[in-house]
Amino acid sequence: MAKDKLIGVDLGGTTIKFAILTDQGEIQQKWSIKTNILDDGAHIVPDIVESINHHLDLYQLDKERIIGIGMGTPGTVNREMGTVTGAFNLNWKTEQPVKADIESGTGFTLTIDNDANAAALGEAWKGAGNNDDDVSFITLGTGVGGGLLANGKLIHGTVGAGGEVGHMIVEPDGYLCTCGNRGCLEQYASATGVVHLAQNIAEEYVGSSKLKKMIDNGEEVTSKIVFDLAKQGDFLANKVVDKVAYYLGYATAIMSNILNPSAVVIGGGVAAAGEFLRARVEEHWTKFAFPTVRHSTRVKLAELGNDAGVIGAASLARITA
Amino acid sequence: MAKDKLIGVDLGGTTIKFAILTDQGEIQQKWSIKTNILDDGAHIVPDIVESINHHLDLYQLDKERIIGIGMGTPGTVNREMGTVTGAFNLNWKTEQPVKADIESGTGFTLTIDNDANAAALGEAWKGAGNNDDDVSFITLGTGVGGGLLANGKLIHGTVGAGGEVGHMIVEPDGYLCTCGNRGCLEQYASATGVVHLAQNIAEEYVGSSKLKKMIDNGEEVTSKIVFDLAKQGDFLANKVVDKVAYYLGYATAIMSNILNPSAVVIGGGVAAAGEFLRARVEEHWTKFAFPTVRHSTRVKLAELGNDAGVIGAASLARITA
Repeated sequence: MAKDKLIGVDLGGTTIKFAILTDQGEIQQKWSIKTNILDDGAHIVPDIVESINHHLDLYQLDKERIIGIGMGTPGTVNREMGTVTGAFNLNWKTEQPVKADIESGTGFTLTIDNDANAAALGEAWKGAGNNDDDVSFITLGTGVGGGLLANGKLIHGTVGAGGEVGHMIVEPDGYLCTCGNRGCLEQYASATGVVHLAQNIAEEYVGSSKLKKMIDNGEEVTSKIVFDLAKQGDFLANKVVDKVAYYLGYATAIMSNILNPSAVVIGGGVAAAGEFLRARVEEHWTKFAFPTVRHSTRVKLAELGNDAGVIGAASLARITA
Repeated sequence: MAKDKLIGVDLGGTTIKFAILTDQGEIQQKWSIKTNILDDGAHIVPDIVESINHHLDLYQLDKERIIGIGMGTPGTVNREMGTVTGAFNLNWKTEQPVKADIESGTGFTLTIDNDANAAALGEAWKGAGNNDDDVSFITLGTGVGGGLLANGKLIHGTVGAGGEVGHMIVEPDGYLCTCGNRGCLEQYASATGVVHLAQNIAEEYVGSSKLKKMIDNGEEVTSKIVFDLAKQGDFLANKVVDKVAYYLGYATAIMSNILNPSAVVIGGGVAAAGEFLRARVEEHWTKFAFPTVRHSTRVKLAELGNDAGVIGAASLARITA
């Protein structure tokens, strides 16, 4: 029987998403389970194995048709060994032999990469990247991550730190980052970065603004609130959004000048602000992009939403197979 | 007879360098001819053909042993068509069918890429890159160019503008660049950029300095003079070098954070300043590099000098073969 199905697993700190896809990347089944991080995350891998085996039974899918399993995970991935370290939101405190355990539990080959790389592959394959060989992906969430495709392959670099676009310095001597450096993009364009910027800009702002009032009253401000207020015309919120867009435009232009992708795709929770954010990022990007790049690279929004992870994960299995 | 020889051609505005190499990248013969840019550069390709054929006869090398010819050229290269446009220093005013003409004139397959990419391949293969799969190369000459290898392949991007590291913006609203943008690295780290910086910094400097005197007297200052004076302890010249090193450290750190190469290799005329420049670049780079990158990527000087071009060109033929 011809092998024509892929399994994609998107492992996150709250849920584990699964999908069965055709080898053309069409999702045929998807489901999810809660991530059980108790007991140092010892249940996670057994739960994944059990859930895959159970659903293959449930859908009465012949195991012979499965090309393999691909998985995106938090933490640092040793792709050759198939192990994961430093996935703190999974409570994994030691190196986890994820590949060995899932392979022995399911009988399928597992290919594993970090979650941002998996999402990048998903968007590149079936989303905003149009299946092009050169696609850059940046995801704006709690942190800022990325995945970069050149010549159809992810850029991992010599020890796997390739694509760490969240730690590009966009403001020398700027905000202190968790990585120890100052002025990383992550400090300005992640959900917390947007709020940090809002607080700082609010301090110097004296005009009338609902955002200013909220901050002064000590109300909880989120990046979503900042963007929503900006859309409603709040002056201060718009100043914040423009600053965020400036940094994103600057960073994506540098990525574009270096990689000349067909698209820089912006995804993640902060990108839920949609065209309102994209258009402003593009405005700044246009100023910083090299002319040839300006006319060949496009700034786009991600298109797959939550499915990017499982689709990209499945794509990992496809690339290896 | 086994094919085991490569021909590398490094086409420049003043000379055309040639080499015959083993398929392991050892140069066995090299020679060069002057570039005749008369008659809209119409002699260049015939001269290349004639010189290759003549030297193969001279060395009595069996044509059957040649794997192919690789060539690095100025201008914009259409790699598939094998044509070159915009090579103004060759006087080529229209699109040149370089591949077709050289192939028909020599009987060998020609692979062509731009000169910075060829030099990058050379350094990656036989120079400071140690034949690693992930190597970034930046060349500081009249302009600033680059070539980036990821997963063992050059990053060309969607229309070939990948690796345009000279046009990374390092100083928003900085010096106006020939590309129309402001603050491109090329304006600070090319030979002319160094002199421009020196003139600007000299204006605000009031202490004693030989460099200051030369500039005030309208004497011709070159980047070599700036570096030589800095090595001799001239205070102003050292301020200039430190600023150049800051911009290079910043730009190479961003490249490193994005690509995590095993080495960022600095070459070109300005890099003749050697360890004096490299050590200072690394100092700034260290501040801007992501911790994982800081411990896995190295800042190195190019090692092949003028041979990088022919070796990398030969490597182009090897990759295609």
